[in-house]
Amino acid sequence: MKKNIVIVGLGLIGGSLAKAFKKYTDCSVVGIDRDSSVLNAALACGAIDKIGGSEDIPSADVLYLCLYPQADIDFITQHIHLINPNCLVTDTCGIKSEICAHLPATAKEFGFPFVGGHPMAGKEQNGFGASDADLFRGASYLIVPCGAPEQAVDFLKSIAAELGFGGTVVTTPEHHDKMIAFTSQLPHVLACAYVMSPRCPEHKGYSAGSYRDVSRVANINEQLWAELFIDNRQALTEELDTLMEHITEIKNAVTDCNAESLRTLLRRGRLVKERLGE
Amino acid sequence: MKKNIVIVGLGLIGGSLAKAFKKYTDCSVVGIDRDSSVLNAALACGAIDKIGGSEDIPSADVLYLCLYPQADIDFITQHIHLINPNCLVTDTCGIKSEICAHLPATAKEFGFPFVGGHPMAGKEQNGFGASDADLFRGASYLIVPCGAPEQAVDFLKSIAAELGFGGTVVTTPEHHDKMIAFTSQLPHVLACAYVMSPRCPEHKGYSAGSYRDVSRVANINEQLWAELFIDNRQALTEELDTLMEHITEIKNAVTDCNAESLRTLLRRGRLVKERLGE
Repeated sequence: MKKNIVIVGLGLIGGSLAKAFKKYTDCSVVGIDRDSSVLNAALACGAIDKIGGSEDIPSADVLYLCLYPQADIDFITQHIHLINPNCLVTDTCGIKSEICAHLPATAKEFGFPFVGGHPMAGKEQNGFGASDADLFRGASYLIVPCGAPEQAVDFLKSIAAELGFGGTVVTTPEHHDKMIAFTSQLPHVLACAYVMSPRCPEHKGYSAGSYRDVSRVANINEQLWAELFIDNRQALTEELDTLMEHITEIKNAVTDCNAESLRTLLRRGRLVKERLGE
Repeated sequence: MKKNIVIVGLGLIGGSLAKAFKKYTDCSVVGIDRDSSVLNAALACGAIDKIGGSEDIPSADVLYLCLYPQADIDFITQHIHLINPNCLVTDTCGIKSEICAHLPATAKEFGFPFVGGHPMAGKEQNGFGASDADLFRGASYLIVPCGAPEQAVDFLKSIAAELGFGGTVVTTPEHHDKMIAFTSQLPHVLACAYVMSPRCPEHKGYSAGSYRDVSRVANINEQLWAELFIDNRQALTEELDTLMEHITEIKNAVTDCNAESLRTLLRRGRLVKERLGE
């Protein structure tokens, strides 16, 4: 596969995609970013072949949108007449309902395929400096076709395999967002809420793996995640309510010194993990 | 240091201590456990030199209590007349107020030193089978002297250094338990509450590091942790209330689509982590 890849936004995800394309495929990679120092760094380290601009869009075989959700939509709106009908446009946003409420209709109207995508990999650092050609090795790649032609979906799957993803899962925007509210957004809310405890600044010497794991992703990019949380507010607040109900059940058993009820609740948790083989 | 070490309870912690003593010191290690298959396994793999009983207690230089809190207290009560005045008695319980309300007074009355201890290391597996000579490498060792002579405290510190702990922290039972409510108990409650979401059984393919980290310790020993939670109910419920207040603040900003307020809250979390250099 030797294709022209255009990546818009060379942050953690866009930068890692660029590096993975250069490491694992013979595609040519063009990078677009508003920050010229990022573009220069990407060119210098070989993550991209060329610093790109609007003029590179018509020759793209695949266009990756790796900005924040609203910025992705704005980018397409501003460059819509430059996209050729054979170019597969995809995104990497953590939430799909918002993107998929706009881009599939635009794509249909202007005659190019759009397939939503979400690489399930991340880090507690942000930006091109943290990007890594191997960030996606073994990770799951969520694909949200939103009515795109099957061959476009298959093409995106074949790219994912070349880049080293562990597998692809095809789903709807709604199901994607419900699952992500649980698997990703909830842990980010929890991490931030957790480290707000007055005890947190004194934790050193008193902590081990449990502290480290729950607090890890509190090192959050608040601009991006505020947008993602609000885009997915219904699913996220449902998950937060469910979580707080379960915390309250456990708390009440503790307050009441009801050891039997507490053991029953904790056993429920353990059995979920055991049934999942984790 | 060639001493007689008696370890009561060869679970994850007691078993790991036994293995660490055999790997890193020339002490002789005697194991006491109610489960003869565990004792045989420990003897067979060289974690202990001898399967012990009451008759080994008088010659112990250090007696490690590695049972559950109430069982540790019961063990001392039942064997009090066998403990020689030069024997350092210590425990490994995750909560100190309960142990320290009983054992220091008993120790003073019967004339042997008691120093509370809490190795800050664990695993999401339990029992001797999961024990590991290197579980404590680099970990923090919390020491709660409760009025014990300084030389007993220094002796426990020197053992910790030989076993490979990363450092020791000396504190009071009350401060220990407040900190542990935050660093260890809260993450365990959270993990159990988190995996109770109806979404959890379907997470595979939709999850990555955030799910794995928050859910890890849901694989809990409910007998032990129910006792630890109830022993520390005041500090734990205060932490749970604090956490739920902060979750609710974030949730309200999401529900209200108040991006500015949400960013401010998330930034608070990020800054805590940044100030800690994490």
